[in-house]
Amino acid sequence: MTTNNEIQLDFGRKKRLGFDEAIFCLQKSSSQIDEILQLASEKNSPMLLTRLQLDTWSELESRWAGKVDYDKVSMTGFFNFSPTPMLHTDVAIVTAGTSDAPIAREASRTLQYYGVGTLDIYDVGVAGLWRLLDRVNDIGKHPVVIAVAGMDAALPSVLGGLVNGLLIAVPTSTGYGVADNGRAALNSALVSCAPGVVVCNIDNGYGAACAALRAVKAFSR
Amino acid sequence: MTTNNEIQLDFGRKKRLGFDEAIFCLQKSSSQIDEILQLASEKNSPMLLTRLQLDTWSELESRWAGKVDYDKVSMTGFFNFSPTPMLHTDVAIVTAGTSDAPIAREASRTLQYYGVGTLDIYDVGVAGLWRLLDRVNDIGKHPVVIAVAGMDAALPSVLGGLVNGLLIAVPTSTGYGVADNGRAALNSALVSCAPGVVVCNIDNGYGAACAALRAVKAFSR
Amino acid sequence: MTTNNEIQLDFGRKKRLGFDEAIFCLQKSSSQIDEILQLASEKNSPMLLTRLQLDTWSELESRWAGKVDYDKVSMTGFFNFSPTPMLHTDVAIVTAGTSDAPIAREASRTLQYYGVGTLDIYDVGVAGLWRLLDRVNDIGKHPVVIAVAGMDAALPSVLGGLVNGLLIAVPTSTGYGVADNGRAALNSALVSCAPGVVVCNIDNGYGAACAALRAVKAFSR
Amino acid sequence: MTTNNEIQLDFGRKKRLGFDEAIFCLQKSSSQIDEILQLASEKNSPMLLTRLQLDTWSELESRWAGKVDYDKVSMTGFFNFSPTPMLHTDVAIVTAGTSDAPIAREASRTLQYYGVGTLDIYDVGVAGLWRLLDRVNDIGKHPVVIAVAGMDAALPSVLGGLVNGLLIAVPTSTGYGVADNGRAALNSALVSCAPGVVVCNIDNGYGAACAALRAVKAFSR
Amino acid sequence: MTTNNEIQLDFGRKKRLGFDEAIFCLQKSSSQIDEILQLASEKNSPMLLTRLQLDTWSELESRWAGKVDYDKVSMTGFFNFSPTPMLHTDVAIVTAGTSDAPIAREASRTLQYYGVGTLDIYDVGVAGLWRLLDRVNDIGKHPVVIAVAGMDAALPSVLGGLVNGLLIAVPTSTGYGVADNGRAALNSALVSCAPGVVVCNIDNGYGAACAALRAVKAFSR
Amino acid sequence: MTTNNEIQLDFGRKKRLGFDEAIFCLQKSSSQIDEILQLASEKNSPMLLTRLQLDTWSELESRWAGKVDYDKVSMTGFFNFSPTPMLHTDVAIVTAGTSDAPIAREASRTLQYYGVGTLDIYDVGVAGLWRLLDRVNDIGKHPVVIAVAGMDAALPSVLGGLVNGLLIAVPTSTGYGVADNGRAALNSALVSCAPGVVVCNIDNGYGAACAALRAVKAFSR
Amino acid sequence: MTTNNEIQLDFGRKKRLGFDEAIFCLQKSSSQIDEILQLASEKNSPMLLTRLQLDTWSELESRWAGKVDYDKVSMTGFFNFSPTPMLHTDVAIVTAGTSDAPIAREASRTLQYYGVGTLDIYDVGVAGLWRLLDRVNDIGKHPVVIAVAGMDAALPSVLGGLVNGLLIAVPTSTGYGVADNGRAALNSALVSCAPGVVVCNIDNGYGAACAALRAVKAFSR
Amino acid sequence: MTTNNEIQLDFGRKKRLGFDEAIFCLQKSSSQIDEILQLASEKNSPMLLTRLQLDTWSELESRWAGKVDYDKVSMTGFFNFSPTPMLHTDVAIVTAGTSDAPIAREASRTLQYYGVGTLDIYDVGVAGLWRLLDRVNDIGKHPVVIAVAGMDAALPSVLGGLVNGLLIAVPTSTGYGVADNGRAALNSALVSCAPGVVVCNIDNGYGAACAALRAVKAFSR
Repeated sequence: MTTNNEIQLDFGRKKRLGFDEAIFCLQKSSSQIDEILQLASEKNSPMLLTRLQLDTWSELESRWAGKVDYDKVSMTGFFNFSPTPMLHTDVAIVTAGTSDAPIAREASRTLQYYGVGTLDIYDVGVAGLWRLLDRVNDIGKHPVVIAVAGMDAALPSVLGGLVNGLLIAVPTSTGYGVADNGRAALNSALVSCAPGVVVCNIDNGYGAACAALRAVKAFSR
Repeated sequence: MTTNNEIQLDFGRKKRLGFDEAIFCLQKSSSQIDEILQLASEKNSPMLLTRLQLDTWSELESRWAGKVDYDKVSMTGFFNFSPTPMLHTDVAIVTAGTSDAPIAREASRTLQYYGVGTLDIYDVGVAGLWRLLDRVNDIGKHPVVIAVAGMDAALPSVLGGLVNGLLIAVPTSTGYGVADNGRAALNSALVSCAPGVVVCNIDNGYGAACAALRAVKAFSR
Repeated sequence: MTTNNEIQLDFGRKKRLGFDEAIFCLQKSSSQIDEILQLASEKNSPMLLTRLQLDTWSELESRWAGKVDYDKVSMTGFFNFSPTPMLHTDVAIVTAGTSDAPIAREASRTLQYYGVGTLDIYDVGVAGLWRLLDRVNDIGKHPVVIAVAGMDAALPSVLGGLVNGLLIAVPTSTGYGVADNGRAALNSALVSCAPGVVVCNIDNGYGAACAALRAVKAFSR
Repeated sequence: MTTNNEIQLDFGRKKRLGFDEAIFCLQKSSSQIDEILQLASEKNSPMLLTRLQLDTWSELESRWAGKVDYDKVSMTGFFNFSPTPMLHTDVAIVTAGTSDAPIAREASRTLQYYGVGTLDIYDVGVAGLWRLLDRVNDIGKHPVVIAVAGMDAALPSVLGGLVNGLLIAVPTSTGYGVADNGRAALNSALVSCAPGVVVCNIDNGYGAACAALRAVKAFSR
Repeated sequence: MTTNNEIQLDFGRKKRLGFDEAIFCLQKSSSQIDEILQLASEKNSPMLLTRLQLDTWSELESRWAGKVDYDKVSMTGFFNFSPTPMLHTDVAIVTAGTSDAPIAREASRTLQYYGVGTLDIYDVGVAGLWRLLDRVNDIGKHPVVIAVAGMDAALPSVLGGLVNGLLIAVPTSTGYGVADNGRAALNSALVSCAPGVVVCNIDNGYGAACAALRAVKAFSR
Repeated sequence: MTTNNEIQLDFGRKKRLGFDEAIFCLQKSSSQIDEILQLASEKNSPMLLTRLQLDTWSELESRWAGKVDYDKVSMTGFFNFSPTPMLHTDVAIVTAGTSDAPIAREASRTLQYYGVGTLDIYDVGVAGLWRLLDRVNDIGKHPVVIAVAGMDAALPSVLGGLVNGLLIAVPTSTGYGVADNGRAALNSALVSCAPGVVVCNIDNGYGAACAALRAVKAFSR
Repeated sequence: MTTNNEIQLDFGRKKRLGFDEAIFCLQKSSSQIDEILQLASEKNSPMLLTRLQLDTWSELESRWAGKVDYDKVSMTGFFNFSPTPMLHTDVAIVTAGTSDAPIAREASRTLQYYGVGTLDIYDVGVAGLWRLLDRVNDIGKHPVVIAVAGMDAALPSVLGGLVNGLLIAVPTSTGYGVADNGRAALNSALVSCAPGVVVCNIDNGYGAACAALRAVKAFSR
Repeated sequence: MTTNNEIQLDFGRKKRLGFDEAIFCLQKSSSQIDEILQLASEKNSPMLLTRLQLDTWSELESRWAGKVDYDKVSMTGFFNFSPTPMLHTDVAIVTAGTSDAPIAREASRTLQYYGVGTLDIYDVGVAGLWRLLDRVNDIGKHPVVIAVAGMDAALPSVLGGLVNGLLIAVPTSTGYGVADNGRAALNSALVSCAPGVVVCNIDNGYGAACAALRAVKAFSR
């Protein structure tokens, strides 16, 4: 059982950081999430939910289905969300493989929630280099590029030599053996031979989106 | 002895990425660096040298002293450099401790080389929180903040909740024991509780500067 | 099947250490735990059970429900427990997030079992610094503070610069990717930039409570 | 060359935490340390220096010898130190081996600097158990025990079952191979089978002393 | 489906090494194990099965129940086993905790299979040192001692200073957090401060038994 | 739900690399795989499926059973496959144990798909050296040898001193404890004392087969 | 002092493996190497020396200078070497950076010693992709390609999608921080997204050359 | 400066364990070692010194040369040693390579000190299998075999299938890259496919000798 004192929502974050709090649901119980939604509901506050796994959502669905726009691939939910007019499409999101789609989608859903449009290009890893080279011009037009890749994470390195915007790598936990749940990809991205690649935690599409949002907002103020 | 075929300089990088190649000197022999400077000299090309250790520089100094502006704290050298008029001061560089100064300076020297001014604030780690809070307003005015910190890297987490610009963490190898040459700081920054912190390799002040440069240029084109 | 010779209860511990033995149930079979309770029952000895998972408890419940006060959030059980008059409230327990509640509760339940009161303050992590600063005065009045935090464990570092009592960090396994089941938090706490932070094993709320108890008792003898 | 802005001394720490700042010298240049001493000198402030290696000290000695009480085994220095009357001898410091002496001495020198007396017992590791058992009564009379041990760090586990005060383990980097510069000892101490052992970073005698100091002061206020 | 060519039983091992082959069942399919038993049956050969998990055994039980003496705690099975007269009781098996019982039993069952008797003493870890000291004389009478311990594995270190026979440590995967599935115990045993402790893989009770058997047989030939 | 843009099949790979794309199914959803098969079906293209786990296949079987030749031991599927006449038997595949069979079979199935015959010899690990020595002549006749081994991976080292063809080691995740899911085997193979052993990722039978295929094709063009 | 019984040269290796033994000098004393050269001299046998560091060579030079062709970049020596007519140029050696030259040269010197010619192309890493694409046709004509790269090792992944011969990756220890002395590169190469990349130990140019030699010889017998 | 209280020699060890204390000199200062020798001298006690590096010995030599028999390869010293009549030659010591000689010699010197003879066979690693097979009969006659090997440590696995005595593996730090200062060898030995191999810490020739001594003495009492 949860009691109120386990939860202190940060309703002032929007004012401080320009975007309101998101709720990371992975290690919260469904009763904790239920209580959080109740608090947001009372304040009539919108809320972004991340890592809301399907089975946790199933326990909440009967009560909150009408209020939450849930996407099971990205495991994100929009609570009390009213679509805002999109800013320009400032961010390109590129994945190396098909298996990276959920993380890429966590990023694009997060940016959508905060009003930033994205160009999403999937499965253009460097083992088939021409798939990527065909799209480089489109990608390079965006001031921010999020590169989502697991295994050897060669994608951000190659992109880093081809596009000149802010390049954020999101290593993913795809692969097996020494892929080590994304550590090989993480380390590879951190020591990229291309200059100025910055990196988020493994599978952290949400974090990459927030970083993109920070850049977009900082330079438009 | 070095022969020409060990070195293929990327003189086209400026056109592609908006900034020219830098030479990472750490694991190059002095004869390799000598040859690189010779090639740049022949092209009358400027060049940024990073991780040029004092003893390597000593072997090169007699020949190149007049042409290279060398800074021993940051181990950077500017070859054939003509100061460009500064862009606005777009980047704040903040360190947790005094020992983080060399890395912070690698970042500020790199940005200076590429024409971006910086506000440098050192030794404001969170163990003495008021040192940081006193400067938060100044820091927060910059669209890009580079936070340089070793050990527990609590600085980017605290800053991440206080400023809303792009926040780039550079973990440093200060500390001992489980600080593990910067790994504790790196991991701490990657799993920061503050949203949207992005991270560079340990001690990679140059990389943080390039990322800042990517953002500054992308949003001013 | 368990036979008596697998278990040697340390009924002399209270005399030696001032607190009686607790049974760590995680890797014991339900038949081993059953036998332990039987032995305690025969001696009419009280007993604290930790890491008693819900499904293990389910196997024991029919027989022991009346004798054990079980709390499923903290996975602790009090056997044969008679509430003692509380000592002063000597220990503040502070968590960074909502997900850290079970570990914090393991600590407060353990202290309650041994007769020490606690002030519990949850979800005041440093990403929303004001939540913490609002409570610092209350926290600082306690001679012992237990800081429970996962991910980057920035909380003990910030607290370590603000309060002057004994500060015990309990890293938790919240987070994912390089959070690495609490290792990032552990290492971060061990290399805290604040002086004199001491650390327990990951998720070891019980250990933190015992350390607090050692201090409280040592200085009141 | 150092400039003032690399250093922000925390002269308010004593008021906040009850003990003034110590300077960790390991990764600071001798010119940075020189400047710090100059600043302290101007404020007529005492200062504790830790990890001041002999060769760094050699560069400072000609200027500061009269003002700094330097101890080469523990690599500590007392600047501007006037002996205060000792509090009771509150802390026992115990080492497993002869090689652990420098770290133990860092702890005892730190406590001496802050006015707390210590009982120092060296080389009583558990491979020769009777050496330890002979001294257990003396050790157990102290409310705080600091156990300094490398390799398998069995000492804090055995002590933890024999004494009932606050027990702080300092793993040391003695040993080779899988001793792994103290990691085996660190992990061993963190998972000690004895209840309520708390742990500091590898070789962090200073940290253990600060934790002891926190406890001694908190319970005497 | 398995085909014969996946399995090459080493029926000559007894002649070479003095003990016949054991079948490690953990990563074999039940059809592979079934085929192995069939081959042994055809040769009328006895066989020791290790790591035969209960659910795998369930699939084999209907066919082989009468022929296999299965013990679910140690997950061992004796196939076609006829008790041999015991040699002297040459081996003492000692565990630190109750949770180490399954591994200790894997060792004692293996020795029993090969005709060596054991003295089994459980739950005498060093946190309650007197439990161990009470039994040291009995233990020390055996030429070979197997010490089974997880977490900090302090038991073999303490024993190593008290008994003079061959001392084989088996680290176990008990514990959590930095216990790291037995790695802390393993490393602790490998860097034991007691001289001449030898070590087996984590949870490898079978291996310890084989090593004991090698010693017993080598010195009795 | 999957949308087309998550998948960009590389139908040009055969022309570039001489073998067509294989689909790694492990971290793809059944709907993604379904769509891939649909795309291949439309192009009338054959396709190799790897790491297609039984439960994923169960979701696809009703629709694709007639078109896919599925092997549950190796978790491979041949889609739209017409047997080609075999090239010579160019590759020997050797395993250390019975548990390595699934990986060896992934390799032999992959080679079969691409038209290369194999000699498969299982369970000849070096603990029973004569099993291996009996077969060395047969093995040594092949220009490429794939050695599949877990645990200590001594097999490739011994083979490397006995056969002179290209020797590809595939470490497997058999074993437990410090076998560490194949890392001990991987590292052992990488530092083999035999000259010229090359290594694939843990359990990567598919990769070893592709490497063999590269060699066979390169030298027959 | 060395005595003969520390050294057992394997003069039969050439017959077994087709190439004679090389002497890895890194952890041998100069007196051990001296003795090895003496033994080879007595047998009038040629010998390849690897990892012969300059300072070790300096101790041997006075005695062996005329007999050993020493190359200080690759740290290799040819003893008693008579150039054989080259086979075709079968192997392309490609490096990502200038710092990878020593390892590449160890590979080309080894192949030269055994009579195989090489095409050496240096400093064509993927951050400046066009440098590589310009040379891909030349590279692709060779049946064996050795790709030498540190940091993120993106080079073998990109090459693996462009050339169809046997592709051997040699990760190098260039870089710093999480490059971790070549581990990031190693792991990246092992989990390459390109099919059939095989990998050697970090900095093992000699091993890559031996693997190439195995392939070249196996397919020409 | 050392004071007596840093050192507590365990002169009772011989009585308890059957062999007297050895002094591990690696992390002791020369003044600490000097004092230890002085104490032993006063008691007229013999003493074994291990890991006494040449430069430390140089500082002690002028005073103790006549009393210490120092061997620089094994870095061991015998103080006050009078040769005892040898027991039978009970232990075979076998190394994989020439570089393993110092560790093997540490073992044989230790056994010599305690009166046990050894058969030393060096450089018979499995890459040249016949070198080993030629000596297997001699090796197998000894009840205890110590196998010293670095890199992949395949030697103990192969020996483990060929000899039936107690087999103690000593992994060594020879090799580079993923050899990781002996960790690959250590892990390989711990997960050996041969039954009953026991393992010491990396480079711990002394420990292996003590274990052998424990066995020899236990079975001869």
